[in-house]
Amino acid sequence: MKDLLRTEHLSRADVELLLDTAADFAQSPLRSHTALHNKSVAIYMTKPSTRTRLASETAVAHLGGTPIFIRGDELQLGRGETIADTAKIISGYCDALIVRTFAQSDIDELGAHASIPVINGLSDDDHPTQLLADWLTIRENFGADITGRKFVYLGDGNNMSHAWLIMGAIMGAHVVTATPDGEWAPDAAVVSKARAIARTSGATIEVTNDPESAARGASVLYTDVWMSMGDPEAERAKKTKALEPFAITKELMSLTEKDSIFMHCLPAHRGEEVSGFVIDGPKSVIWREAFHRRTTIQALLYHLTRGEIKGN
Amino acid sequence: MKDLLRTEHLSRADVELLLDTAADFAQSPLRSHTALHNKSVAIYMTKPSTRTRLASETAVAHLGGTPIFIRGDELQLGRGETIADTAKIISGYCDALIVRTFAQSDIDELGAHASIPVINGLSDDDHPTQLLADWLTIRENFGADITGRKFVYLGDGNNMSHAWLIMGAIMGAHVVTATPDGEWAPDAAVVSKARAIARTSGATIEVTNDPESAARGASVLYTDVWMSMGDPEAERAKKTKALEPFAITKELMSLTEKDSIFMHCLPAHRGEEVSGFVIDGPKSVIWREAFHRRTTIQALLYHLTRGEIKGN
Amino acid sequence: MKDLLRTEHLSRADVELLLDTAADFAQSPLRSHTALHNKSVAIYMTKPSTRTRLASETAVAHLGGTPIFIRGDELQLGRGETIADTAKIISGYCDALIVRTFAQSDIDELGAHASIPVINGLSDDDHPTQLLADWLTIRENFGADITGRKFVYLGDGNNMSHAWLIMGAIMGAHVVTATPDGEWAPDAAVVSKARAIARTSGATIEVTNDPESAARGASVLYTDVWMSMGDPEAERAKKTKALEPFAITKELMSLTEKDSIFMHCLPAHRGEEVSGFVIDGPKSVIWREAFHRRTTIQALLYHLTRGEIKGN
Repeated sequence: MKDLLRTEHLSRADVELLLDTAADFAQSPLRSHTALHNKSVAIYMTKPSTRTRLASETAVAHLGGTPIFIRGDELQLGRGETIADTAKIISGYCDALIVRTFAQSDIDELGAHASIPVINGLSDDDHPTQLLADWLTIRENFGADITGRKFVYLGDGNNMSHAWLIMGAIMGAHVVTATPDGEWAPDAAVVSKARAIARTSGATIEVTNDPESAARGASVLYTDVWMSMGDPEAERAKKTKALEPFAITKELMSLTEKDSIFMHCLPAHRGEEVSGFVIDGPKSVIWREAFHRRTTIQALLYHLTRGEIKGN
Repeated sequence: MKDLLRTEHLSRADVELLLDTAADFAQSPLRSHTALHNKSVAIYMTKPSTRTRLASETAVAHLGGTPIFIRGDELQLGRGETIADTAKIISGYCDALIVRTFAQSDIDELGAHASIPVINGLSDDDHPTQLLADWLTIRENFGADITGRKFVYLGDGNNMSHAWLIMGAIMGAHVVTATPDGEWAPDAAVVSKARAIARTSGATIEVTNDPESAARGASVLYTDVWMSMGDPEAERAKKTKALEPFAITKELMSLTEKDSIFMHCLPAHRGEEVSGFVIDGPKSVIWREAFHRRTTIQALLYHLTRGEIKGN
Repeated sequence: MKDLLRTEHLSRADVELLLDTAADFAQSPLRSHTALHNKSVAIYMTKPSTRTRLASETAVAHLGGTPIFIRGDELQLGRGETIADTAKIISGYCDALIVRTFAQSDIDELGAHASIPVINGLSDDDHPTQLLADWLTIRENFGADITGRKFVYLGDGNNMSHAWLIMGAIMGAHVVTATPDGEWAPDAAVVSKARAIARTSGATIEVTNDPESAARGASVLYTDVWMSMGDPEAERAKKTKALEPFAITKELMSLTEKDSIFMHCLPAHRGEEVSGFVIDGPKSVIWREAFHRRTTIQALLYHLTRGEIKGN
């Protein structure tokens, strides 16, 4: 597999390889230091993202390469020239391309026409690099054997919830999304896809609108901000009211396993989707999780540029 | 010669040296990998340019240096401080400066006051680094002996057409521009300068308004977009009508030599200055040409920082 | 001391160490070349600054690291997430953070929550890295023994004048500010702090509104632009009139010591705070001073990342 365009393209073996390498890179072994020497990676983002950007740029630097950050106002995909032409041009200069954009279809098209690896750094539909960081953090906390454990996402049924279900399905985990019904539930098509993957991986996919039953006995409670960049401000009151029962509070956290952890892809709004007590408390692993954005992107760049990710 | 400010400043020997080195760098030999180690090159652009920017940044990276990209809104030449002061400041920190700006006079002034090499990355008047990439691509296709070959630019008599004439004159080639008469013809002063150079180099300079006679027997057909950034939109209909006969179509291409190639500095607008049949067909060398933007800028940086470009 | 947040935090021993190392780095010794190898430094600026930016980026490059430049419109401190969270996130990816912002309190807060060194690259209140470059330039001109010498800042009683007084106090020097009384005088609190430091360092702190007595017998005349970015344009006429007597002219310069020098943090407005005769004349050391922005930031990064700055 040349690219990482969508979480669903990864096999469990790919994920295990990437997490092994990322865990290794967290110790900064010498083998990483020259992998991209004299090479460069374009990082193209149509919306600002402190975490994805810094994780990507420093991942390249740790591999000995040069990151080239391109803003949305410096290169407008599909204007001035076709996306296919842009993909070919960048392929002539750089050794990989990390893209954060709105439309998943733009990332897919870049991947189709580029000869270099293209990595989805976040789209409206998916967030594969975040999930790699999440699962490395999960493995650091619970080890490789996740039998009997439950991994629960609460809140908005957005791209994070989708990636959560798909990656959980790939990993053979018991994954849950607890969201309001209707408008803010995960897409039915994604749930179906997760269930299809689960049939061969042995995963359990649970989609519920009951936050308490979801939290009971969970090993992980995970959430995301309720209002994303671009969401209409007029929707805020209505959406906040619908999501309020899914906020991760001290009370909800008390229903979980003794060794449970709290996770968040950040940025966080304390007092909205999570209480300060939880996110700044002893069960929170958010800084380690954020740190692993770098190590996992570094592992992805390392293996993709060597043609070592097989796909499923 | 400290800088590359204008195509006309290059001697044929300079160009040959640069093309030899760029061809070598296309193979990534070790000698290039540390030439700019611990050094940095400022890349200052007042208009966005995917190709020139990425080619410049990756050229620096391939030489082991650090590219520093500065947008027009981060440093406004001549506002806040004089261009002379800015040139001296940058000279204190960086090892070279690549500039893409509107006014050629700004680039000339930077070169006059900087103590480091200044490279014209594109101005309203000239585009020397593009021409180096073009001539490396020409050499790769036709070898060193260009006797009896004709190299034809068709379309707008803009900065690209000017650089085409001047570089062809330096190289002793038979170069042609085929453009409408009047407003969109190349500047008479540039044509005169090309003819003056041709008198010693043995080049043939041909300026015509007949696209078919120009194309007949040509080894290269070259074109550029018709509407550049900054051109008034109101002019579009009139300019398009005037330039239409100079579009590079299947029919025009059929008049050329058997081993002819199609070239374009990109971005391209299929269906305007070139048909999709031509640009995406077997005679098109546009991706190799774009790739050589990097190798030739890399060669320029290598030799200019070593003081090895003599000028004419 | 983990950070350099304010000039007043430096001890004289710290400054001497930094100047020694910077003088050494001006010769590019090998020990600097890999200090930040595979590491990266975030450079975050809410206002454009050619000098501080280029000095910082090239300082990182000279240490073998990767600079990551972040514009104010790419990361809005305190919006979207707390400053504390941003500090922790950046600490997970980068090895140091250089910040240029308006509010000194933002820099202080970043330093409090980051686990990596935070360097004040300029705030509304202070400019410690400029003062290091200034004092290296002073030492290069006058040697280590500054007994009997007088170092005079003239003009606006702004952040530069404050840093001038504090650094002079730390260095045990005879430092003077000559400014109008009232609105454009240095803050009384800063003057008090400088005097408190002077009591143990042996410095002499002199605050006057008489430019001629200040200049008489001085070794250094130093000035800054009168109108800073953000100053209301309506204030210009009034402020210019008040500051006019403090402009550094040929006449004022003639009152100084024979071996005196002229300094300026740049950018400069010839004919306003300084005449062209002075700034472009033989006593001006502005280009060397600007050059040392890089060497001193390089020394700071080197020693802060090694935990070798003690503070006072």
